[in-house]
Amino acid sequence: MKALRFEDGRLKLGDIAIPSRSNEALVRVKLAGICKTDLEIIRGYAEFSGTIGHEFVGIVEDSPEPSQIGRRVVGEINIGCGQCRLCQQNDPRHCLNRTVLGIHNHDGAFAEYLSLPPGNLFTVPPTIDDRQAVFTEPLAAGCEILDQVVIDPADRVAVIGDGRLAQLIARVIATTGCEPLLIGKHQEKLKLADQAGIRVVSLEKLQIDLPSRFDFVIEASGSPSGLRLALTLVRPRGSIILKSTYHGTTELDTSRIVVDEISIIGSRCGRFENALRLLEQGVINTDPLISHEFSLDEWELAIAEAQRPGSLKVLFRF
Amino acid sequence: MKALRFEDGRLKLGDIAIPSRSNEALVRVKLAGICKTDLEIIRGYAEFSGTIGHEFVGIVEDSPEPSQIGRRVVGEINIGCGQCRLCQQNDPRHCLNRTVLGIHNHDGAFAEYLSLPPGNLFTVPPTIDDRQAVFTEPLAAGCEILDQVVIDPADRVAVIGDGRLAQLIARVIATTGCEPLLIGKHQEKLKLADQAGIRVVSLEKLQIDLPSRFDFVIEASGSPSGLRLALTLVRPRGSIILKSTYHGTTELDTSRIVVDEISIIGSRCGRFENALRLLEQGVINTDPLISHEFSLDEWELAIAEAQRPGSLKVLFRF
Repeated sequence: MKALRFEDGRLKLGDIAIPSRSNEALVRVKLAGICKTDLEIIRGYAEFSGTIGHEFVGIVEDSPEPSQIGRRVVGEINIGCGQCRLCQQNDPRHCLNRTVLGIHNHDGAFAEYLSLPPGNLFTVPPTIDDRQAVFTEPLAAGCEILDQVVIDPADRVAVIGDGRLAQLIARVIATTGCEPLLIGKHQEKLKLADQAGIRVVSLEKLQIDLPSRFDFVIEASGSPSGLRLALTLVRPRGSIILKSTYHGTTELDTSRIVVDEISIIGSRCGRFENALRLLEQGVINTDPLISHEFSLDEWELAIAEAQRPGSLKVLFRF
Repeated sequence: MKALRFEDGRLKLGDIAIPSRSNEALVRVKLAGICKTDLEIIRGYAEFSGTIGHEFVGIVEDSPEPSQIGRRVVGEINIGCGQCRLCQQNDPRHCLNRTVLGIHNHDGAFAEYLSLPPGNLFTVPPTIDDRQAVFTEPLAAGCEILDQVVIDPADRVAVIGDGRLAQLIARVIATTGCEPLLIGKHQEKLKLADQAGIRVVSLEKLQIDLPSRFDFVIEASGSPSGLRLALTLVRPRGSIILKSTYHGTTELDTSRIVVDEISIIGSRCGRFENALRLLEQGVINTDPLISHEFSLDEWELAIAEAQRPGSLKVLFRF
């Protein structure tokens, strides 16, 4: 089968065997999304080698749980050991021995087929189409924030970034009844958020006086400068939620964190149930967030488009 | 009066007028402690100019509240505007317009007299002697951690640092019933903690396997390397409490924070009531933590002693 692989420091379309693990389900990929993390991986982040990609929707072709065969599914990307306390609580996201689809020791979704344990698969309700379902994983990452902190309708919330993940996060945060402010650099993307009813401001026009700093600042720009900006925007005793992973380090004035008793909260994968519920309720319209669809043969065009600063979600259709 | 002042980038003993502010109480300083923050200020941190020092015990000589006159007191170092929401809630610690004794726009405690608003003063119970009372401010900073996070007896807690603040913090944390591990570099200081019943390990002998990483890591080493060490010691979804303020920046791999959903919580000044209660209960013995007493005339010796890596609390006696 065809698979887009990162090996020996470079990306290439390979022809490899269809996965066959007796304890995992075989999924035929229908649609897969390119994420910022994929772009970071091909810059060396996570030191991954193998088939990249972790956002997908597909059809179960085979499974140790026969009732799954034929179902349309999305998949939790963290594959736990099954033995530890976290895995026993059905949450493999922080299992110390986990592998991660397309990120750590497990071939990913930019291939005709992938395999995942049956317990990682979630059936997609029929009212959610493929182009929505493929957003389940990044949308769950947005929902994770609401599992970590309590945001009230009266809270002042800023989202730094106007890209794929930031757009989803702003929409998720808005479901709390608060009115998040999305801070970005790209007029087109700000317009997109504005059309979804999100308050927006361009970075160059941003002016915040001290008393109206934010209770929560969510850093989803994918840039090291985002955290520094977040530290200037958050109120004393406020919280910064860090969503971006990137290759490299950030220089920080930690005294601001101490003196103003700021909390910085790392936030990663969320629960798929929450994301599927939001999609089923039709609360979040993902269609305007899709830039392009490509075939896997067009991978060079697809990656270049995903890397273009103005781009949004780029999909592979199989 | 004599006052130890930091002006134009250097420290010197000055002769200045006794403070006289009609809305503040005049306190004759009996004993004052040198804190790491004082040492950072004379390296340029906080861009302060004036009399340094903020840990003290003294006698009220004059006050807009006459009942205070003659009382032995310690003092909350943050002086709020009195008008904002925080000040109205009797917590000036994060008032945006605050001044801070010996740190920000308010002359400090390394002087024969200081002035503070009457509401900032706390009467010291007679069972607490001066050499204990002078620890109220740094002890309150340790207590602040327990106002921010809930530590259970079963939690694994590490304290990075074996200096003045770290020693106090370990003793405060131990009051929860958990058994904190103090990680330090100085044999004498580790011995001191050990004698107080604290578990200790020297940095070079520290070995932590992945599954036994800590639920809470408290960074109180005063060194930029402390936060990096904390990130290697904390478990996924664990919390790092940052206590050190220092001049300069720290380079951080923020991906670890995101992927493992670490929380970093800045922690500064605590409530004096909590610290005075611990001292009154005799739970914490501060005597072994005092290195030396000096007169203000001996300020050069005192500062040099406080800067020496092996030193503990250095006091000025008036």
